[in-house]
Amino acid sequence: MFTYTPPIDDYRFLLTHVLGFDEAMRDLGKDVDSDLAAAVLEEAGRMCADRLLPLNREGDEQGSRLTADGVVTPSGFAEAWRDFAAAGWAALSAEEEHGGQGLPFVLQLWLDEMMSATNLSFGLFPGLTRGACEAIAAHASEELKATWLRPLVSGEWTGAMALTESGAGTDLALLKTKAAPLGDGSYAVTGTKIFISSGDHDFGGNIVHLVLARLPDAPAGVKGISLFLVPKFLPDDAGGFTRRNGMSVGALEKKMGIHAQPTCVMNYDEAVGWLVGEPHRGLAAMFTMMNAERLMVGIQGLGIAGGAYQQAAAYAKDRLQGRSADGARSPVAIIEHADVRRMLLNVRAFVEGGRALAGWVALQLDRSRHHPDAAERAKADALVALLTPVVKAAFTDMGFEGAVQAQQVFGGHGYIREWGMEQYVRDARIAQIYEGTNGVQAMDLVGRKLGLGGGAVVDDFLAMIAADLDGAGGLVIAERTLGALALLRTATQALRGAEADRAGAAAVDYLRLFALVSLGWMWTRMAVAAGQDDSPLHRAKRDIAGFYARHVLPQAHGLADAIGAGEASVMALSADAF
Amino acid sequence: MFTYTPPIDDYRFLLTHVLGFDEAMRDLGKDVDSDLAAAVLEEAGRMCADRLLPLNREGDEQGSRLTADGVVTPSGFAEAWRDFAAAGWAALSAEEEHGGQGLPFVLQLWLDEMMSATNLSFGLFPGLTRGACEAIAAHASEELKATWLRPLVSGEWTGAMALTESGAGTDLALLKTKAAPLGDGSYAVTGTKIFISSGDHDFGGNIVHLVLARLPDAPAGVKGISLFLVPKFLPDDAGGFTRRNGMSVGALEKKMGIHAQPTCVMNYDEAVGWLVGEPHRGLAAMFTMMNAERLMVGIQGLGIAGGAYQQAAAYAKDRLQGRSADGARSPVAIIEHADVRRMLLNVRAFVEGGRALAGWVALQLDRSRHHPDAAERAKADALVALLTPVVKAAFTDMGFEGAVQAQQVFGGHGYIREWGMEQYVRDARIAQIYEGTNGVQAMDLVGRKLGLGGGAVVDDFLAMIAADLDGAGGLVIAERTLGALALLRTATQALRGAEADRAGAAAVDYLRLFALVSLGWMWTRMAVAAGQDDSPLHRAKRDIAGFYARHVLPQAHGLADAIGAGEASVMALSADAF
Repeated sequence: MFTYTPPIDDYRFLLTHVLGFDEAMRDLGKDVDSDLAAAVLEEAGRMCADRLLPLNREGDEQGSRLTADGVVTPSGFAEAWRDFAAAGWAALSAEEEHGGQGLPFVLQLWLDEMMSATNLSFGLFPGLTRGACEAIAAHASEELKATWLRPLVSGEWTGAMALTESGAGTDLALLKTKAAPLGDGSYAVTGTKIFISSGDHDFGGNIVHLVLARLPDAPAGVKGISLFLVPKFLPDDAGGFTRRNGMSVGALEKKMGIHAQPTCVMNYDEAVGWLVGEPHRGLAAMFTMMNAERLMVGIQGLGIAGGAYQQAAAYAKDRLQGRSADGARSPVAIIEHADVRRMLLNVRAFVEGGRALAGWVALQLDRSRHHPDAAERAKADALVALLTPVVKAAFTDMGFEGAVQAQQVFGGHGYIREWGMEQYVRDARIAQIYEGTNGVQAMDLVGRKLGLGGGAVVDDFLAMIAADLDGAGGLVIAERTLGALALLRTATQALRGAEADRAGAAAVDYLRLFALVSLGWMWTRMAVAAGQDDSPLHRAKRDIAGFYARHVLPQAHGLADAIGAGEASVMALSADAF
Repeated sequence: MFTYTPPIDDYRFLLTHVLGFDEAMRDLGKDVDSDLAAAVLEEAGRMCADRLLPLNREGDEQGSRLTADGVVTPSGFAEAWRDFAAAGWAALSAEEEHGGQGLPFVLQLWLDEMMSATNLSFGLFPGLTRGACEAIAAHASEELKATWLRPLVSGEWTGAMALTESGAGTDLALLKTKAAPLGDGSYAVTGTKIFISSGDHDFGGNIVHLVLARLPDAPAGVKGISLFLVPKFLPDDAGGFTRRNGMSVGALEKKMGIHAQPTCVMNYDEAVGWLVGEPHRGLAAMFTMMNAERLMVGIQGLGIAGGAYQQAAAYAKDRLQGRSADGARSPVAIIEHADVRRMLLNVRAFVEGGRALAGWVALQLDRSRHHPDAAERAKADALVALLTPVVKAAFTDMGFEGAVQAQQVFGGHGYIREWGMEQYVRDARIAQIYEGTNGVQAMDLVGRKLGLGGGAVVDDFLAMIAADLDGAGGLVIAERTLGALALLRTATQALRGAEADRAGAAAVDYLRLFALVSLGWMWTRMAVAAGQDDSPLHRAKRDIAGFYARHVLPQAHGLADAIGAGEASVMALSADAF
């Protein structure tokens, strides 16, 4: 029933007018320009709209099932995966030395956006595979890389991350899975993991799990955790991968959403695995995966809100109810009603602002890896570190809220499964939780990231925003964002080095304020780029920038006040009085 | 797995220290005091916790099913309904002249709270039955009342409201169902209705539908709609009700939540019915039902958030993750973490503030019906009219947000069905949509209710709040609420008599601001009542009032700014650019 129009015009606008893509690529010595990038995105968009979207509703109804032979995914998923990999989409942004296409990360994030908009359950397969590739590329021995990396990069095989246990989620210090050396350089991994996305499937090919476990001599706590590569199929003597390893799916989690995605309880029973990275340094390797995943998860929120927006906007132009504002015509399309527009504009202001910010962060990620100057690489890397929790948490919170508002546009039909809007809401909800809950992201921002470079990283970032805003020629969006930026700077000063309760009481509000300012900055850049040009896209940018300035940014005041209120009234109530 | 502790101590505190219940009852000549009220609530709470809660999770899994014999509800529902009715709960607040117990409406609303906290799908059965009773009692002929009212009041039979059609939801002017006179005073009703809660079931007894339809001579639009009583079973010659009427369940809606509740597509095929109220005046009769239902729906949001809060607080005291704030202990219960407390306090501040406000509105409803002085009745009636959309929309929005925050406390487990938290979220979502979407409520508040009494109703209400706040001895909660009240008064002036776009662009933000102030007022009254008493309940009231003042009320500024921004940037984007 639904259609999806890939936002290619917006991508093109951002690449050429807002993000300086061509210049950025030249800096990095990459032979990619915005025409090529737009062509790749156009092709990716077609794949998402034509192949992934048609599987989404039915995938939700069927769900993945656990059989004696393992997981069976919904109709069409396995074939879609094979076509996806064969067309090279799995390898889009991987390094060429590992068999990837080496395309810039901004294309990857926007591909992720379109996959999330059309089929989040599907999008998790390549997402987790990419995370596994990142960890292996960064931390595994050359020998492991030689065997495992290329088939993962190509999508012949898939990856999974096995971190969480029932007693150890946010706090990995508590994890219990064991790894015993087998004497030949391999290890026997034993334990049970939960919430393992893409833990098994019926796509064919191997499934490579990266499993956190403790070595026998491991110190207690997070400093005793190591990372192991544990495949579903072990190498056989003929050079194939046919020997089943000692791992099995204990159950599929029954979830609120992403039903098509097989979220597994995994049992590892003396499963053979190999150490990735140093003993007891598994957390560092894990964070290589996690950081890439966290950006991707943020984009999931963005993608879902964008998909939901498109359906809601189409419905609002079609659905007839009520009178025109002057009372003269009845019934009218509900897009005429101010409150319906307000809801749609809220979602769209987030989606387009977030799309721009995601693109900017993605370009920093490319700089952090490919810029010829080490100092520039380090600077970009710090900016990515600073913005990763913001993108993850704010985009998924706003993405969920956006899906809820888009659902609301449908009235009662929004609550009915066959209309599909409630699936967006159920699917979007997970992104606020996994890869570190949004509360954990906020604590990461306040507790770790504000201190990067002794505070210089955030200060420089905010100074850069201020410079852009000052140069915006007095646009309303720039003026209002400057006001919010002043509040953010005060809050940043107040929270830098704050004690745990002070930081914890304010962290979520602070992250939201940070995101509001960052999106205001992007809307300013977009409004400046739109100039006085009269094309529909440029006019829309100016109009939505005005809406964002007047109807969204005012939230900054309340957030700043709540941050300023400190922790006393949060900590006052005794624990047993809750 | 879940337990529910009925908030009896809080009810008692509100009755005796905040709402002046005993005095209010004396004014109305009602022979009910707070001891009796608390005893009734205690009994009601036991029923909800012991009978309804155990059916809730399994009801969600089983759902209601449509068979050749009609709807089959989940295991235990039919028996629970019969026990519920036999114990008199269905008749709690109905007038004694109609076989009810004539207990004050505040007890009804708080019973609704506890039913919603434990089993929303079940709670809709008595809720809709009560709406049907209200409409029949207020508008039907004595003859109809004599036949239909008592068995509905007692719960021997149930009621349903059949308003919506696929092309006519918010805008009932578009409805097409027809009623043709049969010559004997009855009518043949023909049409299809959707989203009919409690449209059919297997509880035994009759099901009385109140159906909106058009008479042959009906003018177009909403002035041509009449209300008909259309029962599932017609009277037979033996004085029983055994003849099947021409109505059937076309399908059950597959929904995001409230799976146990049979939401029916109803086909009326020359079904026999009787006119309720005047021809073409069906909307007035419908609003008698709707207004009672809207308060109840608001309470559904409150109840679900309260139930979800209890589970989340228990989990937070039990779940061990992370370090204490001073770093000395690990792992600690997550209730020690400031961000977890912030989430829980957000939910609780709404639940307890909303509970108090609901009680206050309920007492006004009793005054509007039973006060000996007609002027007092009219005054109370206007206050109920003013606050009905606020309770409906703000409580369901905050209730949904509260359920989401409570789910977030559970981390990944919150997303898993068996843990039950995601059901609260899915169930809570409907309350923002049905009985008039929350956008429609906001338009009702701004477009109609601000003008009541030429504006005097809202002005007097805000003046009463101001007087209470001024008399609160400088408490922080009173000071901060006064600040928000000033913003609300400015917004009220700005929106009174505003044109449609101006009103529509601001209405949702205005309603939220109105609710924030109203809850701040109730927190002030509770903090004043708590005094310096050192009991845990009184201390908690002071602590949470402080949290509400410092961490929730600051939202008022942003809302006021957005309201002040007007409609220009909401209306700027052309409809085809969405």
